Amino acid sequence: MARAWTLTSRPNGMPAADNFALTDVALPPIEDGMIRVRNSWLSVDPYMRGRMNDTKSYVPPFAIGEPLQGGAVGEVVESRADGFAVGDHVVHMAGWRDEAVLPVAGVQKIPASDIPVQRYLGHLGMPGMTAWFGLLAVAEAKAGETVFVSAAAGAVGSAVVQIAKAKGMTVVGSAGGAAKVALVESLGADAAIDYKSDGSLVKKLMAAAPQGIDVYFDNVGGGHLDAALATARDGARFAMCGMIEGYNATDPVELRYLMRIVAARIRLRGFIVTDFQAQADEFQREMGALVKAGKIRSEETVHDGLKSTPEAFMALFSGGNSGKMLVRL
Amino acid sequence: MARAWTLTSRPNGMPAADNFALTDVALPPIEDGMIRVRNSWLSVDPYMRGRMNDTKSYVPPFAIGEPLQGGAVGEVVESRADGFAVGDHVVHMAGWRDEAVLPVAGVQKIPASDIPVQRYLGHLGMPGMTAWFGLLAVAEAKAGETVFVSAAAGAVGSAVVQIAKAKGMTVVGSAGGAAKVALVESLGADAAIDYKSDGSLVKKLMAAAPQGIDVYFDNVGGGHLDAALATARDGARFAMCGMIEGYNATDPVELRYLMRIVAARIRLRGFIVTDFQAQADEFQREMGALVKAGKIRSEETVHDGLKSTPEAFMALFSGGNSGKMLVRL
Repeated sequence: MARAWTLTSRPNGMPAADNFALTDVALPPIEDGMIRVRNSWLSVDPYMRGRMNDTKSYVPPFAIGEPLQGGAVGEVVESRADGFAVGDHVVHMAGWRDEAVLPVAGVQKIPASDIPVQRYLGHLGMPGMTAWFGLLAVAEAKAGETVFVSAAAGAVGSAVVQIAKAKGMTVVGSAGGAAKVALVESLGADAAIDYKSDGSLVKKLMAAAPQGIDVYFDNVGGGHLDAALATARDGARFAMCGMIEGYNATDPVELRYLMRIVAARIRLRGFIVTDFQAQADEFQREMGALVKAGKIRSEETVHDGLKSTPEAFMALFSGGNSGKMLVRL
Repeated sequence: MARAWTLTSRPNGMPAADNFALTDVALPPIEDGMIRVRNSWLSVDPYMRGRMNDTKSYVPPFAIGEPLQGGAVGEVVESRADGFAVGDHVVHMAGWRDEAVLPVAGVQKIPASDIPVQRYLGHLGMPGMTAWFGLLAVAEAKAGETVFVSAAAGAVGSAVVQIAKAKGMTVVGSAGGAAKVALVESLGADAAIDYKSDGSLVKKLMAAAPQGIDVYFDNVGGGHLDAALATARDGARFAMCGMIEGYNATDPVELRYLMRIVAARIRLRGFIVTDFQAQADEFQREMGALVKAGKIRSEETVHDGLKSTPEAFMALFSGGNSGKMLVRL
């Protein structure tokens, strides 16, 4: 028997504690090609909010009454699969629970090293890969260019800042509050904007990037997107990664600078990290080298215990994390 | 002495008659390499509204008290330039006036043919070239794909509809009112939507393109852009050409479906027709062939007399034109 979080009802706007229930779930028998994993780290990510709606998207919605899913790191405690031994650490998608029986297709073994295993849910996992391909492939950011990234203290944003600096770009990051702004600066950003402080975000961004921006990495949408449109240089490219400001919103997004798309020939392109799955090896190799060279610092916000999972998830939408939000079991 | 329209004050929102004044202007002496042209047709185009604001854009703003500019067709009445003879018809940018003295750089001679000369302000001119490169180069529309175009009864939109059909695409056009919808259908569109009729534009577009759209050619912005986002297929490309709904607006644009950019990996790209000037010959050759083959029908709305120019211009923003809006002198 395992313990798993299920979705009891679909959130309307902000998710609340009563949308979730912790329940007992029977584990299936372990067959050939399967492993049993005891989870040690669970990932909570903003994109999961979209799966809680009953709408068609790039991943199917979570079903009511069924266990939720998400990235997790665990230890193999039983194996009937070649290449997976008891004691191995693995990354998989059966999070939001303490234990799972899984076919090994879709399970990634973590190579033995002195890198903390939970990094494979952060800068060496999905958020890091999102940053890497969003910045370098989708936005085609190049050395010498000026990059603006929102939610720069978050899991994806903090990777964007550091990859951009490692590649010779000028970086402006935005975050909410003095502590996160200090974190963004400590990661090497050339300028950090506190979007929560008084004054217009457009003016703050223009002051931080007086020549304008070449690239915008959007994690937020809304007012950040509008400020990026306002300050975009001719031919700017926007990687549209997610819009945390809109995930729980019921009102439309208001944009004052949308027409600059035409005048400044701006290109916006949405992407999903899984579009780049075929290039995952390239990411692991190059990002792994940056991590080993000490060029990527990983901040984490850790909640303890399976019980705290919904709380950790909900805190994503009120700025409750610096760096990667994790649950430690 | 010539007569020319000047801008007396900058419009705030919708332009009004008192923003314009018809004045006498002295013509400069005609020097070597120059011609004197008597205009026969003036073009009024939505983009001119942007130049009436005092804001930085891809073309400098019109100066208060100075003659306005715009596309025009005229006849050479005096020439000191090689290759230009009295009686030649030319296209140039000294519109909003009856006569001009011009250096021939930037003046295009119209080849003798049975094509009416004013077509060089429409489907064989800037609006046609905008449609051509926006559809084929910016949006990369291909045979078999479904294209949605707004303002489909307008100068650019009516060209998009017909180029797309000539290239084997399925086309949905939107326009305001029964007469324009009938025009769009008569141009060969597979479906035409009346955006002014009762009901939601999103639902109308979904009914017209039940499999979704691959390409959106945006002339309007606002609700049309939102409907296109709502119905975009995975990997859809949007050519952002202009946003007539926003040119006179002081309120922000509201979008409910903006987040679909991410989920459906939509690409939006703004462009200006002059970006494709180097490929103008290709356009003239291929579009000229379509026109000669009878595949491009050109609708015109004609106002008579220099005095009617501001009125013709203002009518662009209230749907006063079918096809190309022109002033005949």
